[in-house]
Amino acid sequence: MRILGIDPGLRNLGWGVIESHGTRLSHVANGVCTSDGDDLGERLLSLHNQVIEVIEAYRPDQAAIEQTFVNKDGAGTLKLGQARGVALMTLAQAGLPVGEYAPNRVKKTVVGVGHAAKEQILHMVKLQLPGCLPKNADAADALAIAICHAFYGGTQQRQLKEKRA
Amino acid sequence: MRILGIDPGLRNLGWGVIESHGTRLSHVANGVCTSDGDDLGERLLSLHNQVIEVIEAYRPDQAAIEQTFVNKDGAGTLKLGQARGVALMTLAQAGLPVGEYAPNRVKKTVVGVGHAAKEQILHMVKLQLPGCLPKNADAADALAIAICHAFYGGTQQRQLKEKRA
Repeated sequence: MRILGIDPGLRNLGWGVIESHGTRLSHVANGVCTSDGDDLGERLLSLHNQVIEVIEAYRPDQAAIEQTFVNKDGAGTLKLGQARGVALMTLAQAGLPVGEYAPNRVKKTVVGVGHAAKEQILHMVKLQLPGCLPKNADAADALAIAICHAFYGGTQQRQLKEKRA
Repeated sequence: MRILGIDPGLRNLGWGVIESHGTRLSHVANGVCTSDGDDLGERLLSLHNQVIEVIEAYRPDQAAIEQTFVNKDGAGTLKLGQARGVALMTLAQAGLPVGEYAPNRVKKTVVGVGHAAKEQILHMVKLQLPGCLPKNADAADALAIAICHAFYGGTQQRQLKEKRA
């Protein structure tokens, strides 16, 4: 199964694609979609188009995205929410089932502890995906989210189905 | 000039289309795009598709959207942000110039005071757009945003151009 992980953000949206064969994982690709400028609509449209390009280039079967951490910085939450909304919509448009994971769960799955530093995540991502060189911290986070989905995705899909049934 | 006003929201996204001939305004249409269910991506995609339908049906020249009020309710801000991001992206995709207005400015323009109640907005929208019956409060807000853009849109476009030049 091929999984696309997304670490949402307005300026930098990290993405990572991995292949999961049972418990064996391998790296496919990773990168960062960027947006800049004054026009928020244009920036969001640019992110949308870049995510479509990634999906078309790597044809994932499923996707996973980080659950946004709501903090006291309302303006930051809003910006992140806008980018996350566009990413989720783009994944749904591509017909991809999407798993959502809290940052702590991603860290716990990949590093073993819920409050891991960026460097630890990077280190463990490289260890679990031999030959992988994440483009930056956002791409490493996206790969970690994809790894988390490789472990929990099946369970989450079953729970969703049971919930709907 | 035909203006599409949007009052963003995840469950109810109000929209209103007006025609502006100088200072004379007339009502074209209004309504509400709704989304419901567990799958956030599907809900956002549904809003995206409904906004596209409105644009295709009424062919506006410009659009206006409410600036989101960031409050202490982080989860609410995030939900609203996700819907607003999708709306902004959809307007940009349709090539529409978008004006953004703070809620207080919209109220001040339409009602005369910055802290107007919902009923006052509804009343003044009906008065300024003869024959208009807003579908609900969200649609009335969207029409008020379009009215605000009819008054300030020219100025805002000029300022944007000057800023970019």
